[in-house]
Amino acid sequence: MTPIRENILLHTIRKRPADSFKGTYGHVTLIGGNVNYGGAIIMASSAAVYSGAGLVSTLTDPVNRSSLHSWCPEAMFADFHDQTEVVRLTESADVVVLGPGLGTDALAQQIVQTVFTTVKPRQVLVVDGSAITLVAQQKLQFPDAEIILTPHQMEWQRLSGISIPDQTESANQAAVSRLKATVVLKSHRTEVYTSTGVYQNTTGTPAQATGGMGDTLAGIVGGFVAQFSNHSNAVLAAVYTHSAIADQLAENQYVVLPHQIIQNLPAFMKVHEAK
Amino acid sequence: MTPIRENILLHTIRKRPADSFKGTYGHVTLIGGNVNYGGAIIMASSAAVYSGAGLVSTLTDPVNRSSLHSWCPEAMFADFHDQTEVVRLTESADVVVLGPGLGTDALAQQIVQTVFTTVKPRQVLVVDGSAITLVAQQKLQFPDAEIILTPHQMEWQRLSGISIPDQTESANQAAVSRLKATVVLKSHRTEVYTSTGVYQNTTGTPAQATGGMGDTLAGIVGGFVAQFSNHSNAVLAAVYTHSAIADQLAENQYVVLPHQIIQNLPAFMKVHEAK
Amino acid sequence: MTPIRENILLHTIRKRPADSFKGTYGHVTLIGGNVNYGGAIIMASSAAVYSGAGLVSTLTDPVNRSSLHSWCPEAMFADFHDQTEVVRLTESADVVVLGPGLGTDALAQQIVQTVFTTVKPRQVLVVDGSAITLVAQQKLQFPDAEIILTPHQMEWQRLSGISIPDQTESANQAAVSRLKATVVLKSHRTEVYTSTGVYQNTTGTPAQATGGMGDTLAGIVGGFVAQFSNHSNAVLAAVYTHSAIADQLAENQYVVLPHQIIQNLPAFMKVHEAK
Amino acid sequence: MTPIRENILLHTIRKRPADSFKGTYGHVTLIGGNVNYGGAIIMASSAAVYSGAGLVSTLTDPVNRSSLHSWCPEAMFADFHDQTEVVRLTESADVVVLGPGLGTDALAQQIVQTVFTTVKPRQVLVVDGSAITLVAQQKLQFPDAEIILTPHQMEWQRLSGISIPDQTESANQAAVSRLKATVVLKSHRTEVYTSTGVYQNTTGTPAQATGGMGDTLAGIVGGFVAQFSNHSNAVLAAVYTHSAIADQLAENQYVVLPHQIIQNLPAFMKVHEAK
Repeated sequence: MTPIRENILLHTIRKRPADSFKGTYGHVTLIGGNVNYGGAIIMASSAAVYSGAGLVSTLTDPVNRSSLHSWCPEAMFADFHDQTEVVRLTESADVVVLGPGLGTDALAQQIVQTVFTTVKPRQVLVVDGSAITLVAQQKLQFPDAEIILTPHQMEWQRLSGISIPDQTESANQAAVSRLKATVVLKSHRTEVYTSTGVYQNTTGTPAQATGGMGDTLAGIVGGFVAQFSNHSNAVLAAVYTHSAIADQLAENQYVVLPHQIIQNLPAFMKVHEAK
Repeated sequence: MTPIRENILLHTIRKRPADSFKGTYGHVTLIGGNVNYGGAIIMASSAAVYSGAGLVSTLTDPVNRSSLHSWCPEAMFADFHDQTEVVRLTESADVVVLGPGLGTDALAQQIVQTVFTTVKPRQVLVVDGSAITLVAQQKLQFPDAEIILTPHQMEWQRLSGISIPDQTESANQAAVSRLKATVVLKSHRTEVYTSTGVYQNTTGTPAQATGGMGDTLAGIVGGFVAQFSNHSNAVLAAVYTHSAIADQLAENQYVVLPHQIIQNLPAFMKVHEAK
Repeated sequence: MTPIRENILLHTIRKRPADSFKGTYGHVTLIGGNVNYGGAIIMASSAAVYSGAGLVSTLTDPVNRSSLHSWCPEAMFADFHDQTEVVRLTESADVVVLGPGLGTDALAQQIVQTVFTTVKPRQVLVVDGSAITLVAQQKLQFPDAEIILTPHQMEWQRLSGISIPDQTESANQAAVSRLKATVVLKSHRTEVYTSTGVYQNTTGTPAQATGGMGDTLAGIVGGFVAQFSNHSNAVLAAVYTHSAIADQLAENQYVVLPHQIIQNLPAFMKVHEAK
Repeated sequence: MTPIRENILLHTIRKRPADSFKGTYGHVTLIGGNVNYGGAIIMASSAAVYSGAGLVSTLTDPVNRSSLHSWCPEAMFADFHDQTEVVRLTESADVVVLGPGLGTDALAQQIVQTVFTTVKPRQVLVVDGSAITLVAQQKLQFPDAEIILTPHQMEWQRLSGISIPDQTESANQAAVSRLKATVVLKSHRTEVYTSTGVYQNTTGTPAQATGGMGDTLAGIVGGFVAQFSNHSNAVLAAVYTHSAIADQLAENQYVVLPHQIIQNLPAFMKVHEAK
């Protein structure tokens, strides 16, 4: 595996051109956050905003609107019960992030199916968390779009059929090829399987071992892919950035919380943008 | 075009007289924020508060009350479904900011009409965002009040009939004269058309290219016009300030979020007040 | 008038005894915040908490619960529609702060009457904002308790019958004697009428001229009176502290927001506690 | 009594192993926060998250969901009216914290009984606040699990039958032995009764004498016990940490608020982790 190192950032986080506007930096639609897991979609949406996406729309349960806007007034809200809205905001997105806190109930299934039948080949679909579990349970086919998956090891077992001890590089690579997807396999040393190779992250700290980290990574992946044209590099840079910020914070913190990583994105990215 | 430079601030942000009270600094009523776009009216209202308006009232959907007060307990809330309240708080305002996150549905149309028939010549009406689109769609006449418009280029196309590539200084000036309005035409180098001339901003950064920036500017315009008697200068100073703060933050941030600009208003204005 | 100077703090903010507990520092019940003015009771309640009250209960409209707890989870909530709760939390309080954002509707009237018939002579009742207006309109008698009033000049006109230009020291003192109350008459140089004399504040800045300042002062008065046994001094110290913090912040801010004063209370009080 | 000193931290707060994940640090379920006392469960839940628990679930009234997520999106929400959820999240927890802001009504009684009949011997049950009062009132038997109680002196009187003046070390120890529990008896010098001895805290300040401190301690106890295998030491370290942070903040603050202690947990723990 190729180690993911700091130089990926200089190749990815481009200096923004002076003559640009919010449309230049993409529209990310995030879908998730049921009545129990609102925090997940708040963190994912905030991560997309703080990583620099031009426009962010959040499809979630209305019970999460107030806390979403308390964290992030920059995100637009829509009700994920409204299938018309799910279709509209999937169509208008450059990148769809599906799954943080979505759950696996009937509504979640319906939403996954609506998104899968709506996305187009030119769009990026990031599938995370319970949406991965649903795909595995229901044996759904991924749609014809650019697919990025962000499973942890158990979700990857469900999806690929490879049990955790058997998740070797070659076994994973074979499954990834069948899926025609980019796969971010999260662990304490996250691996990324792309069309260009297999990579392993070199950043990360046990101070990060807390709920919400995966939701936050999904949002950063969404934000980076929306902005940076080389999507493989964007995913690698997102994985590196997420844990590199945690490493910095962990120098002075026993535990690092997801929202702290989010709030440090703009400063970290500035230090590491292309010169 | 005359460049808008830092010296506009020294001519505009007056040193506050010792013997003054909140009435001295004006009452700004902001109207917007439907069930989807609550963040827009939160940012506009907060910007009015942090820029120094004496009193701020926010007419919005009740679903946005909690997050509004989580950001800004200083703003008073009213329900924008209640036409009596729309009339009362329009009448009692020195400045009305109409449009951030208002949407274009039937209720939005009704609110725009109520405000247009209620404002008086002595009042300032800032028309922003979807309210501009509604005026264009419905071919509404602006009321007899001091009108300030804050369109982006597409909204200006809808309102003026001038397509974006044809939005030259002279074409815009002709349209502005017909409208008898001050126009803030937002782009990466925002232009301001006032009765005293045409101006172009010299501050601004691509780090600002993110959703909510326009809502924030509308709130600052409202706050400045409420406080500073030369309204042309107040608009120019608002435009300059909004992007100058972004420029400062962008020295250390890859992206600058609207709420960060808002929170930096009091310190920035202190540095740049008249000596 | 005697000027209120910094030395009032050293005589009032006692060093806390080691062997003390939250009951030592009093229970403050704050009542206000209708569907429109939730921010007022949030700021008053937060001010009571940050100034060191041992326990804080907030009786308000349920629509304000979420934003109250977003600012201040330390405050307990109760529904001000529930007369049993109004009675219970009035009885259990050492200090009741009645009025911030209460409004003047039928419910507000009922609440004022319930509180007036419930408070006991050993308790302190701070009457603020619209509750003062209601007392004036309804010609209510203040109950037999220790009464502190915090009117601005127009509210004082309504209550005392003295028009603003006629609000001289002697005219005010006569009215205060009739009312048997301590009166904090808010203006850019606030005056305090107590049983021990007439005082004028020496701190304060036009940067404070913004909505919510009075609500914040009412909360600090409540917090100080709950903790410090000389109530005249407590009121004077509260008035001084509120504006002294604003003066400090105004050195670097063009406008000072109420919530910023609140958050600076613990540090300011530490510097100025009795040695 | 053995004094609890700083060295307990070095023996307890282990350096996190590199190869760990959120499951390594335990699942804490917190139950409490009725319509009045939402702040209590927000503070307890946040304390569990900031002290490093791997996963945190909060069973509370739905009115508290927005403010919970405004403080702490990392916590998962569930409705404490739903007995199935109470059972499920009790079963899946390593540590259950029962009581902060729970109240004593019929629902609270039902929840206490459900938890008591659900917990297993391998689990830790922290019983706090009104849940202790309920146990005393209803003469409930604690279930066969590892029980940690966090009463203040009045709650301990209700539970043990020992009146406050008679709460001597030997009297308390006898009661603790009967209860087969670890008891944290909160006062300005908190005592801890464990199977290994009797301990007295050496940290703490009267600046802490404010509502919500106990809820915060309960959350830290939950977080520490979930992470650190020697549970007696974990409780002692939690008690020490809670007040040691307050001591540090009190150097510059007249009053220390619970949420400030919470936010300082990650940095404090880093300084004091095992070398």
